[in-house]
Amino acid sequence: MNAHTVKLLPAQVTIEVPTGALVAEAIQLAGLQIAQPCGGQGRCGRCAVIVEQGAVRLRSTIRLSAADLDAGYALACQAVIEGDATVLIPEQERIERRLVTEKSARGMELPFAYDPAALQSVVAQQLKLPPPSLQDGGDDLARLQRGLADRGYDQVDIALPILRRIGEVLRQSEWSPWVLLERLEPFNGAARLVDLSAETLRPIGLALDIGTTTVSAYLVDLASGEVLNSAAEYNGQIAAGEDVISRIVFAGKGDGLQVLGARVRETIHELLDRLRKRTGVAPQDIHKVVVVGNTTMIHLFLGLPPESIRLTPYVPAANRPPRFTADELGLGVHPQAGVECLPGVASYVGADITAGALAAGLPSCEQLTLFIDVGTNGEIVLGTRDWMVSCACSAGPAFEGAGVVDGMRATQGAIEEVWVHSATLEPTYRVIGGGKPRGICGSGLISLLSELFVTGAIDHGGSFKLDLDSPRIRQGEHGPEYVLAWAADTEHGRDISLTKVDIDNLMRAKAAIYAGFSVLATSVGVELSDVQQVLVGGAFGKYINVEKAVQIGLLPDLPWDRFHFLGNTAVLGATWALLSSQARQQVVEIADRMTYVELSADNAFYDAFTAALFLPHTEIERFPSVAEVWERQAS
Amino acid sequence: MNAHTVKLLPAQVTIEVPTGALVAEAIQLAGLQIAQPCGGQGRCGRCAVIVEQGAVRLRSTIRLSAADLDAGYALACQAVIEGDATVLIPEQERIERRLVTEKSARGMELPFAYDPAALQSVVAQQLKLPPPSLQDGGDDLARLQRGLADRGYDQVDIALPILRRIGEVLRQSEWSPWVLLERLEPFNGAARLVDLSAETLRPIGLALDIGTTTVSAYLVDLASGEVLNSAAEYNGQIAAGEDVISRIVFAGKGDGLQVLGARVRETIHELLDRLRKRTGVAPQDIHKVVVVGNTTMIHLFLGLPPESIRLTPYVPAANRPPRFTADELGLGVHPQAGVECLPGVASYVGADITAGALAAGLPSCEQLTLFIDVGTNGEIVLGTRDWMVSCACSAGPAFEGAGVVDGMRATQGAIEEVWVHSATLEPTYRVIGGGKPRGICGSGLISLLSELFVTGAIDHGGSFKLDLDSPRIRQGEHGPEYVLAWAADTEHGRDISLTKVDIDNLMRAKAAIYAGFSVLATSVGVELSDVQQVLVGGAFGKYINVEKAVQIGLLPDLPWDRFHFLGNTAVLGATWALLSSQARQQVVEIADRMTYVELSADNAFYDAFTAALFLPHTEIERFPSVAEVWERQAS
Repeated sequence: MNAHTVKLLPAQVTIEVPTGALVAEAIQLAGLQIAQPCGGQGRCGRCAVIVEQGAVRLRSTIRLSAADLDAGYALACQAVIEGDATVLIPEQERIERRLVTEKSARGMELPFAYDPAALQSVVAQQLKLPPPSLQDGGDDLARLQRGLADRGYDQVDIALPILRRIGEVLRQSEWSPWVLLERLEPFNGAARLVDLSAETLRPIGLALDIGTTTVSAYLVDLASGEVLNSAAEYNGQIAAGEDVISRIVFAGKGDGLQVLGARVRETIHELLDRLRKRTGVAPQDIHKVVVVGNTTMIHLFLGLPPESIRLTPYVPAANRPPRFTADELGLGVHPQAGVECLPGVASYVGADITAGALAAGLPSCEQLTLFIDVGTNGEIVLGTRDWMVSCACSAGPAFEGAGVVDGMRATQGAIEEVWVHSATLEPTYRVIGGGKPRGICGSGLISLLSELFVTGAIDHGGSFKLDLDSPRIRQGEHGPEYVLAWAADTEHGRDISLTKVDIDNLMRAKAAIYAGFSVLATSVGVELSDVQQVLVGGAFGKYINVEKAVQIGLLPDLPWDRFHFLGNTAVLGATWALLSSQARQQVVEIADRMTYVELSADNAFYDAFTAALFLPHTEIERFPSVAEVWERQAS
Repeated sequence: MNAHTVKLLPAQVTIEVPTGALVAEAIQLAGLQIAQPCGGQGRCGRCAVIVEQGAVRLRSTIRLSAADLDAGYALACQAVIEGDATVLIPEQERIERRLVTEKSARGMELPFAYDPAALQSVVAQQLKLPPPSLQDGGDDLARLQRGLADRGYDQVDIALPILRRIGEVLRQSEWSPWVLLERLEPFNGAARLVDLSAETLRPIGLALDIGTTTVSAYLVDLASGEVLNSAAEYNGQIAAGEDVISRIVFAGKGDGLQVLGARVRETIHELLDRLRKRTGVAPQDIHKVVVVGNTTMIHLFLGLPPESIRLTPYVPAANRPPRFTADELGLGVHPQAGVECLPGVASYVGADITAGALAAGLPSCEQLTLFIDVGTNGEIVLGTRDWMVSCACSAGPAFEGAGVVDGMRATQGAIEEVWVHSATLEPTYRVIGGGKPRGICGSGLISLLSELFVTGAIDHGGSFKLDLDSPRIRQGEHGPEYVLAWAADTEHGRDISLTKVDIDNLMRAKAAIYAGFSVLATSVGVELSDVQQVLVGGAFGKYINVEKAVQIGLLPDLPWDRFHFLGNTAVLGATWALLSSQARQQVVEIADRMTYVELSADNAFYDAFTAALFLPHTEIERFPSVAEVWERQAS
């Protein structure tokens, strides 16, 4: 047996090991630390090292991309030493960054060249009007209208508050006023006068995504197309219920509808205030607002009673609300700003999905694409640029941490990723913000469920194997559970666990989403394995670990490079529609073209749901990569 | 000399009189009463009797129409007895009625056959919608829109408050809701949804004439075309100034504009309340409002600063304000009711004139027509259906009683008609309401000025002949004056007089109006004597005595049958426009076609004004009938 010299950087430690030793073993022998949360199974990717030179054979390249391999990356637990070598142990931070970079796959560029003259729906111009005289004594309004007609705007709506200022502004500006116009699409000379001023006007817009959990805002310079800043805040309605159904119930009681409307407006005002502090743009200077959100959120924002959304036949008051002005809605931006809610498709496929489909590039997509927005609900679109079907799978908020004893939203103190040691079942986890944990967020739950399954702590049905020799698996207050963090290690001094009841909730949620995929595919006669790209939107989607989501059967088992995580596609689509009338028109076309499949009316959905209530699925042949891992683990 | 037997009815008194005696003398001899306020000059027409049979020769048929003569009417002071006769002395009331009837010359019928289906701009219908199902799951708004499109309304604006009720109303009505729509003209499928209800809707409209002095309202059933009721009330702004200029000045100070807006709204609310009490129609059930008024009144109603109206070049903020909704204006009718201010032409020729021209029938008029609205200002239109010129003559409010020491508005206690005895200069007068007088209103002032001139109490220049032997003519506090009522006979216990200063004010007012006529005629190259009809609008116009108005040179000297008194043409035109989109379109065409002549920019006006500062005019050949009376009187 030959001995080889392994030099470990940056510690500059040298150690002798025999042929066949793992790099991970060498590091351990040298008294150095490397994270191996999965217990050296090549699952977690946390023990990545860089082999700078030498003879190292990779037992498996799992978790490594071609780019990683080119850069010399290897997993210490899978790298076999066969000669002298120099190995760099990167700082943990660098590993974290690599793992994150790996996921932010796709750039979010505008799908069009931004040309304000051609596309802009809100424009600011300075007019030059002839002053009135005894010979040319027309009224101020007619004079302004003539000036506007000369610029191609021959039918301009002028609201009373602006008409009341017209005389003063025309004279102050010495008959050269600035006008800010919103073109009415399709543009044929019709527009709304949003503002009239003796001072220079600059068109600024706001894109709003009103999520059940989070409200996101982008502040946009409509002349340059530049996003000036963005902000996000929890939806102030959360106290009235975590999911849309509980909000609808709340809205139906007493002045609940008014209360919810006021709360979301407060949230928006907070965002506007934050944007003002960061950019100096006052809310009053925002001249156009494009709003997306799920259908219930749009109803609550507009003050439309949402009751019928939750009652069969699940019919909302309006999928395509008319355009309103900010003062009608008490929005706190320029009172004459047009407020446009982009069109939704159905009670459970709202404008967040149509705008998301735009941002995901569906209108120009030739490949068979699955687009999923993982928010409080799971909405799915399957299609190409030529056809689209959609559904909503009532997954419920389990993946947002609700309905799970120690669940929480993805915020400070949430466990967001978990590795369980194959042999000891001891966990390692990463906490958002880095301190002691308070609970587990969605990505942490997916991660933990997957780890418990892959390490054999739970079976295909999600039941704990109570005969395993681990203090982590125990009979708790709520039945069997796995203790992820002991009280001593948590912020609140209580154990953080995942119970059998929690697992059942998560199983139902993932089964609903997967059943949605299946039913959509069946409805148009394609196989899920034919899907060429899976686009995952929603803030939550950004943090999902594909491998683990596939392992529990939440996402279909496709090669990893077909998955793209797009972040908040809803607010991005709203921003594009705000900037460009062409993009806005594309959203309308998406809504026109998208066929909605009502799952509650579909027996096939119930069958698919039942079949998916298993880890990863009753039909294991649908998940070949999981079968392989599981068999390797079992062997 | 023969004696004849004259039988006087209804007293059944018989008396003998010689040939050549007047009926008036016979009545006096018999010890009976008959009014002869003009002193038997055949001027006042108050001594009318009916010659039932017998030989009576009429010395003059002045003041009697052909119909009067057919009915046997004669003036007692002009009827010469030439044989036995039976004469009926009618009750004074009957005479009054005859005099009034004589003036209300022209019927005010709609100039079109009212056909709701073809003309109505506001319609109510009940829709029958298919209920939603899992198979037909479109949203409520789309369902309603489909139902509306089936009725020909394929572009319907729906306001937020209605959208908020849509779900409830559709379900309450079992998918058969009533809709109330305002068609947008020219109608091509575009409309506004004004109301949506599970109950039957009935379209009701309100026509409003906002005068400087009086606000008039007509409540109209838009389905039947019936005027349900009308009401009028002093404009609550009067306390802030009697004429438009003082209102404009008031509006420019502090919150004056808001105060004036609030006052006229209060007046409108009072009218609505009165109409509600009389008809049971609640203000909330009024679905459309058409408003006319002079340009300043429209500005104050809409809250537009009117300042530029009184400053050269006299340019208003808007002659053609856009359509608004009642809630934008705080009008107290149905919040979604459309409020349409009909188009005006210039700062001093407003929508009251364009609507008045409609009501006066100008759009179909082949004859050369002079239309004058005698309100607080005097606005004049000259033309035919093919062309129109207009001007405003800044006559000031003298004829409304302002700027005259004992002037007052035409209300309880105002002297409205005066006769002065040719020999004694003693007056007789009629008081509105019949009690003791408090002052003199416009028609009384015209009447008095005319009587003073015809009886020779004042000369052509309006100066008192102080050498006449009458206690009525005296040197008063404010210079020479004529005492119309002694303190003992008045309500307030003070003398009621007309001073030289008052006369100068009235002369300026009448000269301004006549100069307006002259300049308009000259501007289009016609003579005033070519005018085939003179249409007098305005509530005040109703009470003018043509003969006396001609005698002072206020109206041109034309045969009496060319004069027609139309009452409030402004509110009538507004009512037609409310009922019929065709009539509304005609008002727009009138405004398009009407050429405005700005008198303040015209030296010809100043010359014509100076020439008219004389009784009746410096060029007496313009007033042949006056010359004749005056010469007869002087002889």
